[in-house]
Amino acid sequence: MSQGYSPLLRQLINALQCLPGVGMKSAQRMAFHLLHRDREGATHLAKALEQASREITHCERCRMLTEHALCSLCASDRRDGTQLCVVEMPADVIAIEQSAAYQGLYFVLMGHLSPIDGIGPGELGIELLERRLQEEDIAEVVLATSVTVEGDATAQLIASLAARNRIKASRIAYGVPMGGELEFIDSGTLSRALSGRREIEAAAAEDTL
Amino acid sequence: MSQGYSPLLRQLINALQCLPGVGMKSAQRMAFHLLHRDREGATHLAKALEQASREITHCERCRMLTEHALCSLCASDRRDGTQLCVVEMPADVIAIEQSAAYQGLYFVLMGHLSPIDGIGPGELGIELLERRLQEEDIAEVVLATSVTVEGDATAQLIASLAARNRIKASRIAYGVPMGGELEFIDSGTLSRALSGRREIEAAAAEDTL
Repeated sequence: MSQGYSPLLRQLINALQCLPGVGMKSAQRMAFHLLHRDREGATHLAKALEQASREITHCERCRMLTEHALCSLCASDRRDGTQLCVVEMPADVIAIEQSAAYQGLYFVLMGHLSPIDGIGPGELGIELLERRLQEEDIAEVVLATSVTVEGDATAQLIASLAARNRIKASRIAYGVPMGGELEFIDSGTLSRALSGRREIEAAAAEDTL
Repeated sequence: MSQGYSPLLRQLINALQCLPGVGMKSAQRMAFHLLHRDREGATHLAKALEQASREITHCERCRMLTEHALCSLCASDRRDGTQLCVVEMPADVIAIEQSAAYQGLYFVLMGHLSPIDGIGPGELGIELLERRLQEEDIAEVVLATSVTVEGDATAQLIASLAARNRIKASRIAYGVPMGGELEFIDSGTLSRALSGRREIEAAAAEDTL
């Protein structure tokens, strides 16, 4: 497909395809855009990529991506060290931080159990997690892995680790999302929402009358 | 949105957004993918970007993107120098080459006339094109600019240049694409297909009986 392009252009188009979701056509479009309209952006991106892939590693304590030994959340003294939220990816940390509903620390698995892809407890840093459970003063592990079969299995594994260390484990709530209209919710979510229903306290219900 | 990320990670996520069609969420996904699964790809991409944006320029003759003085098509002695196909973008050259229906040379405008964006004849290299029309032994200019108002206006401009140099100009055919079902074709295309209808020669029609 890329025949007719000069070697350097072909190399750039091929290299761009290492980005997730970028195929031949998008890579061509990106290459032409950068070369024709935004060479400065291209140089800047090259530098950012080079520097990031050389310097960014994982936080020693929570495995978040960072170029420092500790990420900003682990290094902060304003967080509640008794709560530990376990998530799959760095983006999940950011999403939870944006909700502003959690003040504790995190542990980033960088994936979930997936024997087919060769991802077992070792790849998820479970040893490091267990060491934290033993050494730190953690009262509750909040399991915020994704709501999939693999995410559930991963949560289950960590819950048993927590139990072994006599630490309370909780799972974030499943159910109908805010603004969700029942007719458009998939049946799996709906069945979880029904089985996870909570009683409305009589006192609270009466207050609204 | 990218608060909570380390400075280098934030820089990478911002830099990735210079790619066309890549917003905050895709840039995050790309950054995590590269850092978590494909650091080699990231380093390779950084090099390709740096090298391409430093070395790739335009072919002196046809304005195709290349790191050499002449692109491979202009440098080839197998092409028919009497035909000159004018296209908007480098990808158009590749698309026409793939059709294997054209053996002549090219001229890449790198855009189309668009006064609103400040793109006039100067930005499209029209001077260089006119010099080629005067100096080279060109018998036909094939106008393959896009089928839009701007593409048509650009084709019109170049056709008048060709006329001034007594060179035949042709426009690629408009109509229903191969496999196109009439009910799903837009009315503009259909009206062009009708007005551009061609008589089927009696002899050819009889052959099929």
